Amino acid sequence: MAASIIDSIIFQGIFTTDAMRQVWSDENRTQKYLDIECALAKVQGRLGLIPQEAADEIVSHCHLDQIDMVKLRAQTERIGYPILGVVSQLNALCRDKLGEFCHWGATTQDITDTATALLIREGLALVEADLQAIADALAKLCREHRDTPMIGRSNLQQAIPVTFGYKMAGLLSAVLRHQERLQQLKPRVLVGEFAGAAGTLASLETGAMETQAGVCAELGLGQPVIAWHTIRDCIAEVGTFLGLVGGTLGKLSMDVKLMMQTEVGEVYEPYHHGRGSSSTMPQKRNPIASCYIHAGISTVRQHAAALMDAMVADHERSTGPWEIEWIVLPEAFCLMAGALKQSRAVLEGLEVDVARMRANLDITKGLVMSEAVMMGLGPYIGREYAHDLVYDICREAIRSDRHLLDLLCEHPEINKHLDRPALARLCDPAHYLGQSGVMVDRVLAAKARQDASRQA
Amino acid sequence: MAASIIDSIIFQGIFTTDAMRQVWSDENRTQKYLDIECALAKVQGRLGLIPQEAADEIVSHCHLDQIDMVKLRAQTERIGYPILGVVSQLNALCRDKLGEFCHWGATTQDITDTATALLIREGLALVEADLQAIADALAKLCREHRDTPMIGRSNLQQAIPVTFGYKMAGLLSAVLRHQERLQQLKPRVLVGEFAGAAGTLASLETGAMETQAGVCAELGLGQPVIAWHTIRDCIAEVGTFLGLVGGTLGKLSMDVKLMMQTEVGEVYEPYHHGRGSSSTMPQKRNPIASCYIHAGISTVRQHAAALMDAMVADHERSTGPWEIEWIVLPEAFCLMAGALKQSRAVLEGLEVDVARMRANLDITKGLVMSEAVMMGLGPYIGREYAHDLVYDICREAIRSDRHLLDLLCEHPEINKHLDRPALARLCDPAHYLGQSGVMVDRVLAAKARQDASRQA
Amino acid sequence: MAASIIDSIIFQGIFTTDAMRQVWSDENRTQKYLDIECALAKVQGRLGLIPQEAADEIVSHCHLDQIDMVKLRAQTERIGYPILGVVSQLNALCRDKLGEFCHWGATTQDITDTATALLIREGLALVEADLQAIADALAKLCREHRDTPMIGRSNLQQAIPVTFGYKMAGLLSAVLRHQERLQQLKPRVLVGEFAGAAGTLASLETGAMETQAGVCAELGLGQPVIAWHTIRDCIAEVGTFLGLVGGTLGKLSMDVKLMMQTEVGEVYEPYHHGRGSSSTMPQKRNPIASCYIHAGISTVRQHAAALMDAMVADHERSTGPWEIEWIVLPEAFCLMAGALKQSRAVLEGLEVDVARMRANLDITKGLVMSEAVMMGLGPYIGREYAHDLVYDICREAIRSDRHLLDLLCEHPEINKHLDRPALARLCDPAHYLGQSGVMVDRVLAAKARQDASRQA
Amino acid sequence: MAASIIDSIIFQGIFTTDAMRQVWSDENRTQKYLDIECALAKVQGRLGLIPQEAADEIVSHCHLDQIDMVKLRAQTERIGYPILGVVSQLNALCRDKLGEFCHWGATTQDITDTATALLIREGLALVEADLQAIADALAKLCREHRDTPMIGRSNLQQAIPVTFGYKMAGLLSAVLRHQERLQQLKPRVLVGEFAGAAGTLASLETGAMETQAGVCAELGLGQPVIAWHTIRDCIAEVGTFLGLVGGTLGKLSMDVKLMMQTEVGEVYEPYHHGRGSSSTMPQKRNPIASCYIHAGISTVRQHAAALMDAMVADHERSTGPWEIEWIVLPEAFCLMAGALKQSRAVLEGLEVDVARMRANLDITKGLVMSEAVMMGLGPYIGREYAHDLVYDICREAIRSDRHLLDLLCEHPEINKHLDRPALARLCDPAHYLGQSGVMVDRVLAAKARQDASRQA
Repeated sequence: MAASIIDSIIFQGIFTTDAMRQVWSDENRTQKYLDIECALAKVQGRLGLIPQEAADEIVSHCHLDQIDMVKLRAQTERIGYPILGVVSQLNALCRDKLGEFCHWGATTQDITDTATALLIREGLALVEADLQAIADALAKLCREHRDTPMIGRSNLQQAIPVTFGYKMAGLLSAVLRHQERLQQLKPRVLVGEFAGAAGTLASLETGAMETQAGVCAELGLGQPVIAWHTIRDCIAEVGTFLGLVGGTLGKLSMDVKLMMQTEVGEVYEPYHHGRGSSSTMPQKRNPIASCYIHAGISTVRQHAAALMDAMVADHERSTGPWEIEWIVLPEAFCLMAGALKQSRAVLEGLEVDVARMRANLDITKGLVMSEAVMMGLGPYIGREYAHDLVYDICREAIRSDRHLLDLLCEHPEINKHLDRPALARLCDPAHYLGQSGVMVDRVLAAKARQDASRQA
Repeated sequence: MAASIIDSIIFQGIFTTDAMRQVWSDENRTQKYLDIECALAKVQGRLGLIPQEAADEIVSHCHLDQIDMVKLRAQTERIGYPILGVVSQLNALCRDKLGEFCHWGATTQDITDTATALLIREGLALVEADLQAIADALAKLCREHRDTPMIGRSNLQQAIPVTFGYKMAGLLSAVLRHQERLQQLKPRVLVGEFAGAAGTLASLETGAMETQAGVCAELGLGQPVIAWHTIRDCIAEVGTFLGLVGGTLGKLSMDVKLMMQTEVGEVYEPYHHGRGSSSTMPQKRNPIASCYIHAGISTVRQHAAALMDAMVADHERSTGPWEIEWIVLPEAFCLMAGALKQSRAVLEGLEVDVARMRANLDITKGLVMSEAVMMGLGPYIGREYAHDLVYDICREAIRSDRHLLDLLCEHPEINKHLDRPALARLCDPAHYLGQSGVMVDRVLAAKARQDASRQA
Repeated sequence: MAASIIDSIIFQGIFTTDAMRQVWSDENRTQKYLDIECALAKVQGRLGLIPQEAADEIVSHCHLDQIDMVKLRAQTERIGYPILGVVSQLNALCRDKLGEFCHWGATTQDITDTATALLIREGLALVEADLQAIADALAKLCREHRDTPMIGRSNLQQAIPVTFGYKMAGLLSAVLRHQERLQQLKPRVLVGEFAGAAGTLASLETGAMETQAGVCAELGLGQPVIAWHTIRDCIAEVGTFLGLVGGTLGKLSMDVKLMMQTEVGEVYEPYHHGRGSSSTMPQKRNPIASCYIHAGISTVRQHAAALMDAMVADHERSTGPWEIEWIVLPEAFCLMAGALKQSRAVLEGLEVDVARMRANLDITKGLVMSEAVMMGLGPYIGREYAHDLVYDICREAIRSDRHLLDLLCEHPEINKHLDRPALARLCDPAHYLGQSGVMVDRVLAAKARQDASRQA
Repeated sequence: MAASIIDSIIFQGIFTTDAMRQVWSDENRTQKYLDIECALAKVQGRLGLIPQEAADEIVSHCHLDQIDMVKLRAQTERIGYPILGVVSQLNALCRDKLGEFCHWGATTQDITDTATALLIREGLALVEADLQAIADALAKLCREHRDTPMIGRSNLQQAIPVTFGYKMAGLLSAVLRHQERLQQLKPRVLVGEFAGAAGTLASLETGAMETQAGVCAELGLGQPVIAWHTIRDCIAEVGTFLGLVGGTLGKLSMDVKLMMQTEVGEVYEPYHHGRGSSSTMPQKRNPIASCYIHAGISTVRQHAAALMDAMVADHERSTGPWEIEWIVLPEAFCLMAGALKQSRAVLEGLEVDVARMRANLDITKGLVMSEAVMMGLGPYIGREYAHDLVYDICREAIRSDRHLLDLLCEHPEINKHLDRPALARLCDPAHYLGQSGVMVDRVLAAKARQDASRQA
């Protein structure tokens, strides 16, 4: 029985992914606790802080299948935290009281925070893979539609032409920056915690810093410059990173939703039988994936605020703020996994209706080309006069519901300079795409550089 | 395997309750879908809109145990919504194609929204019960400690005395208002939805409004004045209500945390063996429940913002905003259930250290009584002069670390008016409690009135 | 020099109103401080707690023009709060040290909170007036367009017809509830505060509750059941109320933006010369007001969360949370005033293009009538068969880009039952409006009842 | 007349700074518009896209004192944006219609966004300076109090000793990371915008990219890889950066507030006459600055969420989301400037009561040393037995209210191994500081490296 949408049997496949749920599952979290206790025993055995025999015995029991999860729940509810329960079970599993050397010098939050760093690492790896796939899918669309004209819209009004590739390249530029942000934040957040009750490691008379360094190395995490039990900027930064990625996916979903409108019809989410269609309204093609993206990312930005709230910790171990992270961090990752999955599916399978894009460029009967016409006539009749004249003709076009080109051709001050073919060329959206292609190329080049430097 | 803290085997008992998880479970939600289809069939049979035989057949299958949940998940992932899956399973369960009359004239969102109203009703009933228990526990503390002196604190500085009953009465006054808010919002939000694809009920040529009225009556819900598929103020209001209740619980937990500080020690969360204690630091008595309350309610206020975001719906059926509710509403209820449970436990089992409260009144050596002394000397030496004189003596008391009473007794301008017993009385916190008791009585009277009117 | 958008000389006219800025201005806030000190002196004079001569003298100076605002700023920065500065200036204005009796028994927060209640009253009065104007404008649109057909949209896809009056009636139903909420919350929040340093009124040996009652009565505020220095649910409730109203305005602006799209063109914000137009793109008609509404209300819902955060106050006078209200409350009111003004202007001057609405009903060539056709054919060929047949014909219509009506007329299984005029009637959106009109009438009736009861 | 707290004559000195208000003032923003138009004219003159004479004439008028601000407000309210007003005024200032070449090829949002980048640069410079000052002040406290013992607190319970320098070093570690984040985000956000109506720069037939590159270079901004009219991750990132910095300041203010409690009294905000004191309660020393920090940063994290919301932009120029930035960005900067100023003042003038810190270590009569005692006895009587024995003795100490040391000395199993001086040494907090000093040194070394690399 699940109450959250993330764990709902019915909805989990929509709002998150199995892989990300696996990361934040009770099982994986508990295994991480064991991995850390294992690393700690290994390192302390090696350093001679605990008997090697104890280290070996402890290491041999750090497997999830030896933990009684039902008992762990009861222990957690009684104590308020699961770590002591895990340690006591582990202790009990060891022969000859060797388990006493388990958790040596550690405090509950050391294990919890280090586990969080490990889970974040796994979570970010999934995010990173999806970001790369999204970047690749966007790049493919950029290349294929570098020169596909469509109308650009400003304030939801048709403005002037752009290309569909240009539209995708804008999104891609943001994804490239998200990838950069991710690389920059990783060394900050992927650090271990091993610091004892108040962060001073007083619990180890000798070998304290060596143990800390060793455990972090064992787990592939950075060593912290100081305890971070109540210094939580890096956790909150992960939340804001997810929120920022969410904003970009939200922009993607917004544009897809708008382009899928019956009245626009320029792109479609990939078709799956029965999905996004209606049994009584066959004309409908619902942007289902975009709905889910929108909902997920709208929630995650609130999670980001909650994680910044959690930074306001008291003294050496906080009284409530820390637990905000427990609630919010798994959800933010799980919801973002869903939004990334849906976004990736949308982009990898997007149906682009090039003909409809072209047709929509014409529905204003040439008015969207007025800026181009003003500019094109400038050299002949002066820029300012051209502006005023074309503006007047456009208003006449609206009033009479005629095509701008026809009115231009009829106008004596204009047709004495340019004939119909020349004016038709001025009114052709494909000739007013500006630097769309150049900008696409710039973004693709940036992607190539970034991909190369990451592989290097 | 659960990834959310709410469904986590390990943590669910801490952050939520079984009862509230049951409300928002897949099973209960699906049963509500069936209840609504059942009510719809009944009403439409009664109205002659569908054959009575079909109605009877449908009604006979509206039981959760006849639904294949695994299949439902697959259907949901394919279609994007679970309703059609439930209807098609229900349809298949009926003999002789009578299931065709199931869901007659309804749309997916009709069933989903009505189910949400039913789940909110169950969720609010649990909230209501906890609010009543909390009010009762607070009232008990008010009565028991109506006249228990303790220091009042302003800006975390000792200010002047209050009573512990007064402190609890302030919280109780807020709980009483939450109860009032709950009564006021119920008629707004506990309404059904039955309106068809665009809310106009065009799907029923006859008996449309009668069906709507009948289904709502059958389910014990109000009839909406108009379709609310994209008019979501009432859902968001539930979120803000939960957020407001959370604010009050947050204030409670903040005060408990502060009063439990080692340096203060005036109250304690109820003791459970092993809970909130440390195996190496026996002096610790951690405010565990208060931590969980703080974390839960800090998240819920962000949920409230997300639900207000979800109000910005488009046209007749929204494209993303609605799904925000799916994510957020169950969580907000589940987290609040946890916070309410923890708050209730804290209040019902609160240990109050009256002696420590009394002792803390003395740690400033009388300085917290300076206002009282100023006022008490006013009639003898003039208010303004009394103020300046006492202020100077207080500074001397701080400088010399002596008790204010001693310095007052020594001062010639003062001891010529009042002897030591009289001055001791002026310095006695128990004589400077102002209207603490009166205010407690006022709040208790308000509670009595409100309880009575609700029972009436 | 102003840095906030609210006080920006350039932008203030867009994002807020002069009337609401006046409410929250330094001048008005300071005048409220004086009004309260005035009421306090009057009441305490009347009760004999201070000399009548002092009361009269104090009252005679409680005028803003006697306050040196530059000095007040310096005092505020030094002390941290403005009240003491006001009191000391007032004191200095009084002859013969009679000013000593000013602020008798009061504390800084008493005056600040009571002033806040008075400012909220003024702010809510402005909100109430705008809500009424919006309700009236919506009602007018409901009546005028009760039967104006337009397409209903679900998931941004054309679904089935509705009427424009129905669309407006949905919004009106929410506004009616906001008016109800406002009436319900007023008695909770419009109460005074007079409680002394820790809320116990120990500062007055006699006449404490009488003074409290008298001051509240003098100011037209309710008397609090107990001090609310750190019990802030009512202030936060005002924030959530504004956030909820904002959600409804956000829905309005969303629909207006979408309907103003070049490709849709069904309604337009009222035209102002130069507003929302482009000097080079004459086809543009930008939904400027809707932009401002969207931005304002998106910010206010976060303010609501901040106000719930401010509820987590410590002890008897909070250390930081209170000041959140100082920042957020004026902004939330000012931004909502802007959003309400813009919404009202949009609704009062909305241009409705009935012809374009009608035309848009046809762009799917009859497909949006498929549900109606299925239902209409049911009696002749069976509901289920009708569904499948029509669905197939619709897909053929999409494939061949022909009008549904033509294909229906050609189909032998259909034209044997119904001729072209009959089928044309089935395909006529005006005959498939369901209960649109009935629902409009229900909402208008609810408004009439509510207006009447408020005037009574 | 100001309505926002930021521009309030009374409060502005508390919640923000003059320098930051100056950055976001109407005057500075308008000057930035002029600077950009000036740069554009210069570059286009140089490139031969506009006559050099026109460029020179335009450049000569790009001064704020030539702009009529009253007229600009009227223009802004009419048009909805201020840019066109500025351009038309600038145009009118130029002789011989040379002003026609002003704003050549630009769109409103180009100028607005580039101005925003310039204002962010100025705002971040102020933030950067304050962060450096805060880092320096923290480093000074770290060095001075590297070995000053105080109690470490966990869950607001006294736990084990730390040093005050360690406590400050934790904060410093976060500030160092914020400085790193700031350096990393600057190249992303400090880029210009020059892209025309839909971002394609179609408005310039020749020299488009050269103009873009030139204008950016002229203004000292980076050149964007593509237009970012509706790709707003970098603006939102600034918001999240401010929110993260706020979280750290919030933690600082939380600890200061808690340490200033009457019952704790370990540090004090710097004393200013009349500030944070009470005229009737001389014992009070209010943490006024901490209050303002708390309130400011609690609001800013909600602003960060609003800025992520603003990322959900539509098409090529967004319809509402953009304007969220207009409201929120200036406020977030202004409030953070206030919080930074207050934090800096707190840290630069912090009074540290070393004696009280020492005294507080003793209030549990040695219990906070139990972990140390357990460890110290381990070698003599076995770790596990030592644990149980000491735990029992501690409980006896609590019960009998005696000092742990006395009970240890009396215990036969203990005093046969260690005499009173040895046991006293075990109970001395100064001997149980663990790696406090080492960690302080690590953080200071990191600061030195970072300072050096920034200066290099």
